[in-house]
Amino acid sequence: MPHETTATIISIGDELLIGQTINTNAGWIGMQLGLVGVRTKRVVTIGDERQEILDALAEAETDMVLITGGLGPTKDDITKHTLCEFFGTNLEKHPEIEASILAFFTSVGREPLEVNRAQADLPASCIVIPNTRGTASGMWFETAKQQAPTAKAKVYVSMPGVPAEMKRMMLDTVLPEIQRSFKPPHIVHRTILTTGMGESHLAQRIENWEDSLAMERIKLAYLPSPGIVKLRLSAYAEADPDAAIQRINGKVEKLHLLISDLIFGEGEQRMQQVVGDLLKAHGQTLSLAESCTGGYVSHLITSEPGSSAYYTGGVVSYANAVKMEELGIPSDMLELNGAVSKPVAEQMATGVRTALRTDWSVAITGIAGPDGGTPEKPVGTVWIAVAGPDGVESRCEHFIGTRGAVIQRSALSSLDMLRKRLLAQG
Amino acid sequence: MPHETTATIISIGDELLIGQTINTNAGWIGMQLGLVGVRTKRVVTIGDERQEILDALAEAETDMVLITGGLGPTKDDITKHTLCEFFGTNLEKHPEIEASILAFFTSVGREPLEVNRAQADLPASCIVIPNTRGTASGMWFETAKQQAPTAKAKVYVSMPGVPAEMKRMMLDTVLPEIQRSFKPPHIVHRTILTTGMGESHLAQRIENWEDSLAMERIKLAYLPSPGIVKLRLSAYAEADPDAAIQRINGKVEKLHLLISDLIFGEGEQRMQQVVGDLLKAHGQTLSLAESCTGGYVSHLITSEPGSSAYYTGGVVSYANAVKMEELGIPSDMLELNGAVSKPVAEQMATGVRTALRTDWSVAITGIAGPDGGTPEKPVGTVWIAVAGPDGVESRCEHFIGTRGAVIQRSALSSLDMLRKRLLAQG
Repeated sequence: MPHETTATIISIGDELLIGQTINTNAGWIGMQLGLVGVRTKRVVTIGDERQEILDALAEAETDMVLITGGLGPTKDDITKHTLCEFFGTNLEKHPEIEASILAFFTSVGREPLEVNRAQADLPASCIVIPNTRGTASGMWFETAKQQAPTAKAKVYVSMPGVPAEMKRMMLDTVLPEIQRSFKPPHIVHRTILTTGMGESHLAQRIENWEDSLAMERIKLAYLPSPGIVKLRLSAYAEADPDAAIQRINGKVEKLHLLISDLIFGEGEQRMQQVVGDLLKAHGQTLSLAESCTGGYVSHLITSEPGSSAYYTGGVVSYANAVKMEELGIPSDMLELNGAVSKPVAEQMATGVRTALRTDWSVAITGIAGPDGGTPEKPVGTVWIAVAGPDGVESRCEHFIGTRGAVIQRSALSSLDMLRKRLLAQG
Repeated sequence: MPHETTATIISIGDELLIGQTINTNAGWIGMQLGLVGVRTKRVVTIGDERQEILDALAEAETDMVLITGGLGPTKDDITKHTLCEFFGTNLEKHPEIEASILAFFTSVGREPLEVNRAQADLPASCIVIPNTRGTASGMWFETAKQQAPTAKAKVYVSMPGVPAEMKRMMLDTVLPEIQRSFKPPHIVHRTILTTGMGESHLAQRIENWEDSLAMERIKLAYLPSPGIVKLRLSAYAEADPDAAIQRINGKVEKLHLLISDLIFGEGEQRMQQVVGDLLKAHGQTLSLAESCTGGYVSHLITSEPGSSAYYTGGVVSYANAVKMEELGIPSDMLELNGAVSKPVAEQMATGVRTALRTDWSVAITGIAGPDGGTPEKPVGTVWIAVAGPDGVESRCEHFIGTRGAVIQRSALSSLDMLRKRLLAQG
């Protein structure tokens, strides 16, 4: 394995520590660095405090340090002054930056304040990184050119904390410059999405396959989220990126043979997107009848742009009266079996498919909790039915967890059941 | 100001560094600590690496260190072993924890694996914190009782990274225990929830009121999220907590007089909960007809436990055919006005109210984007109608943002419109 290039991310801002703002910048930067082969070793989040910033700068022992936040025009934004102190330099007015700040204010029809003009005062020893989205410039410090006895990294980069400004600056300037300066080894990734089996059981099922990855110098990560386990394979590209891609592809092929029943997609795909794409490919339509999921499956489906091409709508039949009147469930069927039962789920599916005249329909009825469970049908009991051109099928599931978790898993499981039916029709 | 109690948060997990998972735990913990008077000085995020964890533990110079992540059953979860190394202790089997793990698996009808049983092996020198939501126990280490020469904090707490498990553990055990052990200066809070006005305009409207807070030694924080601005008032309780509460209450009363049109709740309340409580109080029922929100309002309503007491169900009328057949919209009304129009929204509301025989109904039809906008009806145009015992009312909104943001703001705005109608009926 080639020498690793490593990074520390320092996120500055009181609002991050008190939970007022969630630190999404650090994760985004870490992902971007990973894509160009730089490993983020540590993220340090601190407040707008001089000593905290100095400590964090001095502690970092990675090749580079990327800093965000504390560059605003107000008094509590002290990053710039603290960087001057750390690097033994002074602020100096950058006339070309001042001109661009004035132009920015003219373009939005406002007068700049003195604090805005002061944003053109930047450390003398840094290379200024232009900000095309705002008035806080970025700064690139090469340690070799600084008076910074405690600096251990080769490069320090300071960027604004506003996500849109930071991202533009990273993509346009910082990432290309990192690749030029550090020539990090290229890393190749593939992420396989699975559902229907928990992390531990999945690990057991693919144990031999996992053991075989080391020989191909492939690393595996399990990334679990409710109802889903993502498997991320990565390998250093070394001299020949194609060879690394082929090594990974070979292993993914084998994985498909092992757990084809669990894999539903790849990369950034969402289950509702996979299902939507299949419906589009077949020119087919979908309707929904939801009881315990209360509209959540419909929400997932319609969160995809363009879903009106295949989704006509649905019925949320929370009350039994709605199940009877809108979906044609006979009252004696409800009395005999209860609302959470195979015949009711199947009748919900065929009822909504007929009423809305769609090719496919999915119905879900269950007990999301925390109340409503019985010894025979405890909280988490969910019947799912899928009706299509070739008939109706149903399944009973037992989910664990909070009301929210039961709803989420029911939705995922019902969409996966539909996905398999869509695939099975050929 | 009394002596500060400080905390370091250490978040462990490769997935956080590579941006696969956003670190929401740290912000939540920081907020909870703030509420009991503990200041978070630093958040350190590191991977599942022994040396990184040891370094982070040894560096922390705060009163307490709260650690999340790396407690899963798989091989790459090494937090527990590394804590043993840091504190000079060994793992020992905790029979009562093993019993609860077995009981957990029995309750969900599954067989525990060896790796699950191994979760009962915990450091001998820690106090075990029960996990009511999963199988990874928490650990509370008092430095005075450890062999840990490099430990500078008084207490170290290790918790699982799964947010629901960590939160339950924090609220039930860790926060009360922190208050008992550290007696941080008591802080009194009230958080007022507003909707319908952005942060800057709201700040302008309550400027004089905000200026008056300093005299009462009350601090104000604006906590904005999509469609909502929370106003959090806090004051040190000092000798007499009641006096601080009364100072805050007096200011909240004045705030209600200023912006009664914007305030919908307080504290941890959710809009759907406020609406549900009003429906319950009046013994009334609700149905929904959703087009552009695609079931999201229904999902919000049914995410509240017990919502079946007032919510009977709804129709997601995504296709025009469903609007006509299920909600009785005349086809010439659709042709003449388009689906996103006042008459269609109002007919959707009255149609679903009649079909589902409820006291109230809400209908939403709009253009969530990114496609489907026209010069007259750009993306973000949304018609909302509320029908009730005293007739139907509607309103047109223009929301900005992504598809997701338009859906979210439409839902919030429609529920707030219903809330005001429910209040107006007396």
